[in-house]
Amino acid sequence: MSNPDHAWMARALRLARRGLYSTHPNPRVGCVIVAAGESVGEGWHVRAGEPHAEVHALCQAGARARGATAYVTLEPCSHFGRTPPCAEALVAAGVDRVVAAMQDPNPQVAGRGLERLRSAGIDVLCGVQEAAARELNVGFIKRMETGLPFVRVKLAMSLDGRTAMASGESQWITGPAARAEVQRLRARSSAIVTGADTLLMDHARLTVRAEELGLDAEQTRLALGRQPLRVLVDSRLRVPLAAPFFQAGPALVATLAGGSAQIYRSAGHEVLELPASAGQVNLAALLRELAARGANEVLVEAGPRLAGAFAQHGLVDEYQLFVAPKLLGSLARPLLELPLDRMSEARELQITDIRAVGTDWRIVAVPGKAG
Amino acid sequence: MSNPDHAWMARALRLARRGLYSTHPNPRVGCVIVAAGESVGEGWHVRAGEPHAEVHALCQAGARARGATAYVTLEPCSHFGRTPPCAEALVAAGVDRVVAAMQDPNPQVAGRGLERLRSAGIDVLCGVQEAAARELNVGFIKRMETGLPFVRVKLAMSLDGRTAMASGESQWITGPAARAEVQRLRARSSAIVTGADTLLMDHARLTVRAEELGLDAEQTRLALGRQPLRVLVDSRLRVPLAAPFFQAGPALVATLAGGSAQIYRSAGHEVLELPASAGQVNLAALLRELAARGANEVLVEAGPRLAGAFAQHGLVDEYQLFVAPKLLGSLARPLLELPLDRMSEARELQITDIRAVGTDWRIVAVPGKAG
Repeated sequence: MSNPDHAWMARALRLARRGLYSTHPNPRVGCVIVAAGESVGEGWHVRAGEPHAEVHALCQAGARARGATAYVTLEPCSHFGRTPPCAEALVAAGVDRVVAAMQDPNPQVAGRGLERLRSAGIDVLCGVQEAAARELNVGFIKRMETGLPFVRVKLAMSLDGRTAMASGESQWITGPAARAEVQRLRARSSAIVTGADTLLMDHARLTVRAEELGLDAEQTRLALGRQPLRVLVDSRLRVPLAAPFFQAGPALVATLAGGSAQIYRSAGHEVLELPASAGQVNLAALLRELAARGANEVLVEAGPRLAGAFAQHGLVDEYQLFVAPKLLGSLARPLLELPLDRMSEARELQITDIRAVGTDWRIVAVPGKAG
Repeated sequence: MSNPDHAWMARALRLARRGLYSTHPNPRVGCVIVAAGESVGEGWHVRAGEPHAEVHALCQAGARARGATAYVTLEPCSHFGRTPPCAEALVAAGVDRVVAAMQDPNPQVAGRGLERLRSAGIDVLCGVQEAAARELNVGFIKRMETGLPFVRVKLAMSLDGRTAMASGESQWITGPAARAEVQRLRARSSAIVTGADTLLMDHARLTVRAEELGLDAEQTRLALGRQPLRVLVDSRLRVPLAAPFFQAGPALVATLAGGSAQIYRSAGHEVLELPASAGQVNLAALLRELAARGANEVLVEAGPRLAGAFAQHGLVDEYQLFVAPKLLGSLARPLLELPLDRMSEARELQITDIRAVGTDWRIVAVPGKAG
């Protein structure tokens, strides 16, 4: 951190992270204005429709922005969205230099913001702490680049890779620290996808609950200001309206062309009829639809069948495995319904992180062969 | 480590560890003689029948042992075994003070060594770095205290807890770094226990191989000076003599009263007829027999059935799980054949270590509820 650009960008990234739970569908962005080696203005994007990070920081800096350097975790926007373009605001404020962590992958921006700054004679540097900046907005970037959200599959398993007893008995495999971590994964997601098996078996609501988040007051308030869209994949509309999931608030039900859809609609839920793929809801079509609605990060919290289907179709970007130090034995349910016959079909993953979460462990793994 | 006793004992423990692969059936022991704040003699026990650590250290110290402090990782012995008692040697050398990490659990010693030193007017302190000392000789201690060896079950699995495809296809789930780690686990063990399924499927030899150990020249030489006893549990004597396991050298076959035992005996192998337990070799009886032969640490390298039987009978002291970042899918073989019906039967473990081994991960877990 001897490089001051890196240190200021790290600070801007810390600011950006304060929007982890609230900026959907926008990216998380932080900004620091530095004059004579001191921060004179700081800001972060709080939620969609409200000012961007740069506007907050410039407002705080006032006249001190003239001749200063602005550190932004994402290229300043160049287009009129719900707010005026930040590139213009930086030019107007008279900053001398702009350091950005990365280009905005939004095709409406994609370098035009930086270009606008350069054309105004501002010294522009892009790519400082880019890896950390990309990680922070992994969902927004994927949606902008591919039209699909970033799909994170959360699974709670025993050390022998089992998720529930054969009878379905399963709740509380992992401890309270792991459950709080799952609450935070929900809170940062745009949407949570589950399946009929899970709802029928576990009576899950899949809501974000203040008391289980383990966040400070500000972050809790921001997280609860916006519940992620709860999505049920239920090809044959098996889950009754009386289920806690439906009682907990309006949800989206993804199904095949179904006759009883009207019952769900009358109860305030949205029913999305999707094409079939081998008799089940086409999951790629569902993800495209969610991205079109602005979903950056999607959390799949489902049983072995639905989670396995995401895996089988290559739709998983990241596994979050919460491992309880238990053996559930060989009769118990598998981690994923993923029928493979030959070793050559085995799915290669790369473990990117393992750490203790209370008495459990969290393993993060991404598809792709380890280097 | 500001406490000099701790620091010198840490050095004695490092010396003791040099005997990790060679002291069977004896414990690993190190000794440092310190005079005027300097080490004047160091030693470690190399192999059974050869001098104990104290003798090496005293020999090196010579006259400088008079008035010195001796640090030993295990209480000096008080009995005439294959070598004369070390307590007498320390008295004769005129040391002023003896610091031991732990009492010798050997009922022939069990405090008598320290008593002898005290009765000679030597200042004795016991219990310095005891936890590390106990860990180093976990097998010797268990054998002395219970008449059973320490049983370590090694399993190589995918992230979804599978050990092989349904077809049996399984070799090389994990990479070369994990395999080297397994070689070192073999080398430190007194005996390696495997089952017929594993030998018929994998054609394993279960030998210690110099080129795969990844140790320095001295340690490699010591490890190869003694191959662990290779034990096959084969209730119905299904594994043919032509199997690589039998071709690799004399082995012990544990079986139920079996007619064809003579064929194996003629080929130079030992056949041990053991009582049955639910139609299979009684594993507790096998372990008692191995302990009676001096086995401190036993490594179980077997398939889900035999490893599962050890687990089911509560005979496992430690699991070493080598986790490959792959999904083998839900048709693949389980980690352990361990049929449990209810969550209340789930086996609680405690994860004591997780670390990367090449591109794989090693999880160490011990039975018992996490605190």
